[in-house]
Amino acid sequence: MKRIALLTSGGDAPGMNAAIRAVVRTALYHNLEVYGIRRGYQGMIEGDIFRMETTSVSNIMQRGGTILKTARSKEFMTPEGRKKAYQQLQKNGIEGLILIGGDGTFKGANVFFKEYSLPAIGIPGTIDNDIAGTDYTLGFDTAVNTAVEAIDKIRDTAEAHDRMFVVEVMGRDAGYIALNSGIACGAEDILVPEEITNFINIMKRISSDKRRKKLVNIIVVAEGDELGGAAAVKAKILEAFPEIDVRATILGHIQRGGSPSYFDRVQASRMGYEAVNAIMAGETQVMIGLKNQEIIHTPFEKAIKEHAPLNLKMMEMARILAS
Amino acid sequence: MKRIALLTSGGDAPGMNAAIRAVVRTALYHNLEVYGIRRGYQGMIEGDIFRMETTSVSNIMQRGGTILKTARSKEFMTPEGRKKAYQQLQKNGIEGLILIGGDGTFKGANVFFKEYSLPAIGIPGTIDNDIAGTDYTLGFDTAVNTAVEAIDKIRDTAEAHDRMFVVEVMGRDAGYIALNSGIACGAEDILVPEEITNFINIMKRISSDKRRKKLVNIIVVAEGDELGGAAAVKAKILEAFPEIDVRATILGHIQRGGSPSYFDRVQASRMGYEAVNAIMAGETQVMIGLKNQEIIHTPFEKAIKEHAPLNLKMMEMARILAS
Amino acid sequence: MKRIALLTSGGDAPGMNAAIRAVVRTALYHNLEVYGIRRGYQGMIEGDIFRMETTSVSNIMQRGGTILKTARSKEFMTPEGRKKAYQQLQKNGIEGLILIGGDGTFKGANVFFKEYSLPAIGIPGTIDNDIAGTDYTLGFDTAVNTAVEAIDKIRDTAEAHDRMFVVEVMGRDAGYIALNSGIACGAEDILVPEEITNFINIMKRISSDKRRKKLVNIIVVAEGDELGGAAAVKAKILEAFPEIDVRATILGHIQRGGSPSYFDRVQASRMGYEAVNAIMAGETQVMIGLKNQEIIHTPFEKAIKEHAPLNLKMMEMARILAS
Amino acid sequence: MKRIALLTSGGDAPGMNAAIRAVVRTALYHNLEVYGIRRGYQGMIEGDIFRMETTSVSNIMQRGGTILKTARSKEFMTPEGRKKAYQQLQKNGIEGLILIGGDGTFKGANVFFKEYSLPAIGIPGTIDNDIAGTDYTLGFDTAVNTAVEAIDKIRDTAEAHDRMFVVEVMGRDAGYIALNSGIACGAEDILVPEEITNFINIMKRISSDKRRKKLVNIIVVAEGDELGGAAAVKAKILEAFPEIDVRATILGHIQRGGSPSYFDRVQASRMGYEAVNAIMAGETQVMIGLKNQEIIHTPFEKAIKEHAPLNLKMMEMARILAS
Repeated sequence: MKRIALLTSGGDAPGMNAAIRAVVRTALYHNLEVYGIRRGYQGMIEGDIFRMETTSVSNIMQRGGTILKTARSKEFMTPEGRKKAYQQLQKNGIEGLILIGGDGTFKGANVFFKEYSLPAIGIPGTIDNDIAGTDYTLGFDTAVNTAVEAIDKIRDTAEAHDRMFVVEVMGRDAGYIALNSGIACGAEDILVPEEITNFINIMKRISSDKRRKKLVNIIVVAEGDELGGAAAVKAKILEAFPEIDVRATILGHIQRGGSPSYFDRVQASRMGYEAVNAIMAGETQVMIGLKNQEIIHTPFEKAIKEHAPLNLKMMEMARILAS
Repeated sequence: MKRIALLTSGGDAPGMNAAIRAVVRTALYHNLEVYGIRRGYQGMIEGDIFRMETTSVSNIMQRGGTILKTARSKEFMTPEGRKKAYQQLQKNGIEGLILIGGDGTFKGANVFFKEYSLPAIGIPGTIDNDIAGTDYTLGFDTAVNTAVEAIDKIRDTAEAHDRMFVVEVMGRDAGYIALNSGIACGAEDILVPEEITNFINIMKRISSDKRRKKLVNIIVVAEGDELGGAAAVKAKILEAFPEIDVRATILGHIQRGGSPSYFDRVQASRMGYEAVNAIMAGETQVMIGLKNQEIIHTPFEKAIKEHAPLNLKMMEMARILAS
Repeated sequence: MKRIALLTSGGDAPGMNAAIRAVVRTALYHNLEVYGIRRGYQGMIEGDIFRMETTSVSNIMQRGGTILKTARSKEFMTPEGRKKAYQQLQKNGIEGLILIGGDGTFKGANVFFKEYSLPAIGIPGTIDNDIAGTDYTLGFDTAVNTAVEAIDKIRDTAEAHDRMFVVEVMGRDAGYIALNSGIACGAEDILVPEEITNFINIMKRISSDKRRKKLVNIIVVAEGDELGGAAAVKAKILEAFPEIDVRATILGHIQRGGSPSYFDRVQASRMGYEAVNAIMAGETQVMIGLKNQEIIHTPFEKAIKEHAPLNLKMMEMARILAS
Repeated sequence: MKRIALLTSGGDAPGMNAAIRAVVRTALYHNLEVYGIRRGYQGMIEGDIFRMETTSVSNIMQRGGTILKTARSKEFMTPEGRKKAYQQLQKNGIEGLILIGGDGTFKGANVFFKEYSLPAIGIPGTIDNDIAGTDYTLGFDTAVNTAVEAIDKIRDTAEAHDRMFVVEVMGRDAGYIALNSGIACGAEDILVPEEITNFINIMKRISSDKRRKKLVNIIVVAEGDELGGAAAVKAKILEAFPEIDVRATILGHIQRGGSPSYFDRVQASRMGYEAVNAIMAGETQVMIGLKNQEIIHTPFEKAIKEHAPLNLKMMEMARILAS
């Protein structure tokens, strides 16, 4: 193999730049040429491809976002789109792909491989941490720290006013950010998509807290909880307790940005490094993951089908500790 | 004077704890007894009053919120409420008051003084920075830095996706936070309550940016802008440009919390220190402010009536610099 | 068991307060009484012991340091000291101990148990991450993030001046902080106690970088490296390259403080929670650790004797990625 | 005037990039061509000059350091050096200069102007805040906040161990950073170059604190204090109180780096904007400063000769508040 290409796809996540740097530097070290593709599969279709050198990735590790930009591509879901994409790769002499992204990214890679047999290695980059075959996905560590810093600030004002806050964090299908930020901020309740929320228990808890004059309350809710987000939960609380001073806040996109934590940078470096080793070793259709502190390989098939399970035992602990 | 009392009132602001510390320590240094009143005027009415010592304020300067808690009190707006409040102060032998808060706090103090002639000194504590007689109010510096850190993170993801964001910051009547965070983050547009927004100009600017492929855009809007908040502005943009990928986000209460900046801590210290000196010197009904780096005194009357003006010349500069 | 006591010992580490909170709240939930011992074994000897309630640990999880304070006790190393300590525990009716600290803490506990058979459970709290039987010790995650934020700032000024910096991080016997902060900051060289530094290779690397005009260089050195700390390394570099603009900086105690990361808070919560469960289940002389994401128990014997090994494969990767 | 050039010189300071952005964008808005000179006067001599466009300064405002790099130039202090520099400017058709830096930068500009009559406008960029004719210099606000965050962390560990710390901050001739960070962190003593330190008073204060069991102490010392830095002060304390657990720490270069605060970004923007207006209006040999919130012009002569005075009244306040 002489030339590989690299892209980021799906939602951006802190640490993607560190992974890009690792892929580029490792490839060059092994005398592989590296091309960057901008805006994911869409840029592949449009031929937005450029050669990368060592200095292309200088001083990017500490930056949020992705210098390769990212996008979702409807066109790549069509055979015509993928054909164009393949032609662009051929034109540029690309013999292998490294893909940083989530579920959707690897699904696309699977279809593409069936059609064009171009080897591809994946790196899990999504703040949601919900990909099977890895204990951890790039960006998750930073995103939770960002959420925690924000909720700490909200607690300051909640304490000052003896107020209740419902804080919505990211996570459409996964409660990882909610569970971890909720525990870390001492949230009185944590609502996640993986569990049906028992609202009667929440009401009982609020009643009991009111009796003992515990007025400050933080409820962390994942955006994908079946009750709805922060606004819906606030409305339900006000229905039951119209006299309570409760506010809703949505942390939103701040969770995607910011300088990555050391952990995201180190694991991104390891994954990027290993991805190049894997593609040089002739592997394909595998995602580089982290299991029990070790770097492992998981077939895309498995990573796509399964969902990393949430440790729901921690929910019970959270309730006891916030009491 | 032998005994004074101290309260925080209105919305909480970072730096309030530093001001509390300064008042308590300066008073004790001058052999004045200091009492803390919890939850502002409401706690005054309810007699939620306690003696404070040097160690009561140890290690609080770096904390957000206010250890005295704050609240808004409807009861204090009634003559009966104020009578109860006065009786509580008499019962505790309080001869002077130091009040940390905003407009409403000082208005209440004025009415109270007319009725009961109890001397009071104010310290401007509000993140909105909109009080006349001072260049700066406690909490403003921290709040803008918090907003800027958040918008920087949002820009990371905006750049990754070539996306437009409308970010709502606090400021119901005042555009200080919006103007300063907007300039500091290179916002393409800044919408403030002090100026009628020319939406046609915004649309022209967006069209022009689209033509030259400048797709990343940050629009900062104060919550009190006459167009409405972030959601309303986003809707208007989508009406004009349905194809644009635009998101709205409300920074919300994170702007109130967090460890205060050095500037908020230092000015809070100076104001608290001076407030005690002023009350000992027999002054009353004045607010301690900061003008041209010097600590000054402004009658409550003036602080209440006028509004600190926004430097609108900076709006033009912001537009040129973001181009 | 009806009553347990809790202490922190050795160097302080971010996350200790979260562990204290978890122990207290879990114990109270199970109707165990909890006593806090201030200043570690020294406070035990002196009887600096007090009852803790739910509110004793309110709002401490986000704080650095330890509300129980910590100290090293020479007296506890003597039979007389331990006798006094035991008498104090008896006087207070303490039937079990939970100890948050490092190697030395657990060694002390082992000797104490042999003499007095008082059950004890340990929680690994040290920023050095060098205890066997756990993938991770409390405070490590925060300490590395603190080091990384500092080195990122140093890189800003290094880039501005085309300057070389030798940055010393904590780690007398262990290179965990150095290795991880070095990778995360793209350090050109990382010097750790676990490996004999080949200074000739460093000189070659510097020569080669000079030739290709790569003047900005960050060398991260653990305080326990056999070459000495930052000042010694800087001197050696200047000996070989007198014309190079190189600065030495010691990050120092900032690495111990600060609000803990989400990871330190969550793991501290899990460990504190589990420590109470273990002591109630009749276990003793075990440390609660984290292995492969799961909470496990390791006998003190093992935790003391062995040293968590550093992943030296990452050193080679670091060199390739910084090239 | 058709073409100007821009450089940063002296020590780097957060906010320099925001000023660069403002100069470039404002100049282009007025159809002036802008050239960047790398590495200050040294780069001017070497002809390290390049044309800048709007996108040259995209996304730099939030970065520490200076994209133009900075250096000190001995050669520029010689007539031959300045002649070469002038020839380079002539070759590139430069008709005016904008200089971001400190004292030394403006002194150089004065000599240069006398010899070659090339108009120059200055922007004060130095974290030391010690230039006359401006209340504030770029980078100061960020540097103090960085110092405060670091000292807060040190206080965490000081409290945990009941320990004294001597913390050295930057400031060879000026105590601005020491005074402001000291007040903001509640330092028990603050040592600045502007005042002869009365060490006997410090010893008395330590003795008195010891008697009342106040063991945690933070002493902030500017590097230019006449007692010497942190190590010297620690040694003097240990001489007087050998039993005290006291540590010295030097914050060092972290104070120069990091993302600038909103205040540094906004003032840098205003100064850069005004510098271009001034040079277009035919002004020369003036520094753009900030006085009483307004942008003003001060002749280099005055800015060089005088030194911004430290408000020593705040020293007394600091002592009272830390008691």
